[in-house]
Amino acid sequence: MSDQDDIADAPDRQAGEAVWRTLSRLRSGRPLVHCITNYVAMDINANALLAVGASPVMAHAAEEVEEIASAAGALVINIGTLDKLWVTSMLAAAKAAVEAGVPWVLDPVGVNATPYRLEVAKRLTRLQPTVIRGNASEIATLGASSASGGQGVDSTIESFDALDAAQTLARKSGAVVAVTGAVDYVTNGRDLVAVANGHEFMARVTAVGCTLSALVGACLAVSDDALDATVHGLVIMGIAGEMAAERSQGPASFRVAMIDALYRMEETQVEEAARIG
Amino acid sequence: MSDQDDIADAPDRQAGEAVWRTLSRLRSGRPLVHCITNYVAMDINANALLAVGASPVMAHAAEEVEEIASAAGALVINIGTLDKLWVTSMLAAAKAAVEAGVPWVLDPVGVNATPYRLEVAKRLTRLQPTVIRGNASEIATLGASSASGGQGVDSTIESFDALDAAQTLARKSGAVVAVTGAVDYVTNGRDLVAVANGHEFMARVTAVGCTLSALVGACLAVSDDALDATVHGLVIMGIAGEMAAERSQGPASFRVAMIDALYRMEETQVEEAARIG
Amino acid sequence: MSDQDDIADAPDRQAGEAVWRTLSRLRSGRPLVHCITNYVAMDINANALLAVGASPVMAHAAEEVEEIASAAGALVINIGTLDKLWVTSMLAAAKAAVEAGVPWVLDPVGVNATPYRLEVAKRLTRLQPTVIRGNASEIATLGASSASGGQGVDSTIESFDALDAAQTLARKSGAVVAVTGAVDYVTNGRDLVAVANGHEFMARVTAVGCTLSALVGACLAVSDDALDATVHGLVIMGIAGEMAAERSQGPASFRVAMIDALYRMEETQVEEAARIG
Repeated sequence: MSDQDDIADAPDRQAGEAVWRTLSRLRSGRPLVHCITNYVAMDINANALLAVGASPVMAHAAEEVEEIASAAGALVINIGTLDKLWVTSMLAAAKAAVEAGVPWVLDPVGVNATPYRLEVAKRLTRLQPTVIRGNASEIATLGASSASGGQGVDSTIESFDALDAAQTLARKSGAVVAVTGAVDYVTNGRDLVAVANGHEFMARVTAVGCTLSALVGACLAVSDDALDATVHGLVIMGIAGEMAAERSQGPASFRVAMIDALYRMEETQVEEAARIG
Repeated sequence: MSDQDDIADAPDRQAGEAVWRTLSRLRSGRPLVHCITNYVAMDINANALLAVGASPVMAHAAEEVEEIASAAGALVINIGTLDKLWVTSMLAAAKAAVEAGVPWVLDPVGVNATPYRLEVAKRLTRLQPTVIRGNASEIATLGASSASGGQGVDSTIESFDALDAAQTLARKSGAVVAVTGAVDYVTNGRDLVAVANGHEFMARVTAVGCTLSALVGACLAVSDDALDATVHGLVIMGIAGEMAAERSQGPASFRVAMIDALYRMEETQVEEAARIG
Repeated sequence: MSDQDDIADAPDRQAGEAVWRTLSRLRSGRPLVHCITNYVAMDINANALLAVGASPVMAHAAEEVEEIASAAGALVINIGTLDKLWVTSMLAAAKAAVEAGVPWVLDPVGVNATPYRLEVAKRLTRLQPTVIRGNASEIATLGASSASGGQGVDSTIESFDALDAAQTLARKSGAVVAVTGAVDYVTNGRDLVAVANGHEFMARVTAVGCTLSALVGACLAVSDDALDATVHGLVIMGIAGEMAAERSQGPASFRVAMIDALYRMEETQVEEAARIG
């Protein structure tokens, strides 16, 4: 792992080629990604997944989540607008995914905001998520198993400050843990990878973090290695953000351009832009 | 009915004039369209309905759906993100619409994906929908009353391959049935109409199928003939897609341009572009 | 209060400077705005709040709404897609906000459409909202405590025609009441302010009224005066609409440009464009 400047100075072509292979498999394989996500994120998540080549399905009814999760290429569970009925379905879907060998991503949105979210996130963490992705306040809270600051659902600390918590959480849960922010960090408790792609507008569009989790899910569906899949999902979204920034007048036109970029992204753009350290 | 090439070669000016009359009635009449639809589709459906001239209302509470459905120009029921509480409201709203003589559209999203959806869709089908619109996998499943392939909520077969199922379903249910895809087919069990308008990006934007159902609902509210109204709704949306493709860099800018086009569409554009066979 | 033409002819620089100070406080303070809002409005509300500088949190679970509302800078409750479970949370959140001294906004969407909505809105009105914002049909209904026309969730009367109802409602409830439309009127039961900013496309994009309520909430979080905060929220959104109209091809590109404008808006634009009378 290098520091942010090193990463920014030296795009990693070899890593970029691996990212491109994942993206190509996504586009040809069109994996089914089952999302149980929050109301705010559904639209952008479904559109980002379609743009990148995956086939999203949003479903939360207790009557059908086990069946859909078991048949999916990956499951993504996001607690952004949870309530009792949804939590029941989330737990059932996660169990079904694990039993069927389907990888799944936990996005503990706002786990730092209330004890209720922390309790739900801890229950889900015990169900062997393949990947846990959150912002620094969220991972710091979940890693420490007690609230660690943060205001609402936005982080008040830098991703670097949640590194210890991330590694602890990875070791305890067995999951790959990603802390995303200006620089993203991904760890399995031993290895640590940093990703420096992205743009500041990504913090000004709602549900971009949730969309990162959805893309990581899509990459898991076409990869054998959870750490690589996570890194590749973050790089793809980060490059889309960089491409989008060039044609944006503000956060809303940025969002449109970012989804367009997920669809348009070509081999050379990925290979030349990936900043992994 | 002609095959796809014939339709594409020969826009039908007379049919286009009828489509334009429907669109004009929509814009002047501003019919109330009550949607009980999925979380992913709500935003794009409401915006598409407003852009085309209708007045959308989203409401799902058991306490009020009968009243709203009875007073509406049309009701649209979409099972994309159903659960038990919503199903209760869907059934009540459909019954109220039929009793009040309000036309209603059933969109059986993902009916091929789980037995739960199939059971719900069958119960709704027995409540005399005016129109049933789905992709090929959905109509094939509902027409056969047993799962017929498809992955998640996207179709794995061509619309042409669901023609027999569509005609069977139309005869059994009494509804006009529309199978939409690269070419759309609309049948009342006797007559069969094909629509060749549209653009491939429409499959890369989430909830475009749901929006087709919503627009068909809007057209039903200002038409006497359910077959014509269905065809007109599909043509209007297809032309909007064609107009949008000219100013798009990817699926997200396409979506924006498609809704703009529903608002901007002029008489000559409709009359010269309608491809009905 | 002047009539619409006077306001339009004479932007008020002094008032504009006060609006700019509110916007600056928003951008630097990043207040947490807790929204319990309808499914259609969530995406645009969260994005508009982020663009203008606030930190939105959407949460509706009974297990956590009191805690989140108490800690927020403002609470916004919108009954656009209500049902029984959500109403329980809305009532609890409003009570918690009042107890904690957190200002809150009531948006009685479609209160004119059904007795159920009217009953819910009346219960919420009794919980001391700081501001009530609605269209003319909604305020006329809530002010009269009986349905007063309107079709679905769109108004069928002009904002001016709801002025008496607004003043009655303000006096009875103790809230500042805003009736928005081509011209917006804001009253505390004694003073009356008119705002003439905005663009006709704002009626062609879903949930713009809801977004006005969310922005008013954000302004309340950084202001001492509820009347001023309400006026400033309406002016900011209205100017964003005017800026957006210059770069739009229809309602969807207008929506994108309007959110961009909330982010881009500069001091001179606010000071030169504010039309308050």
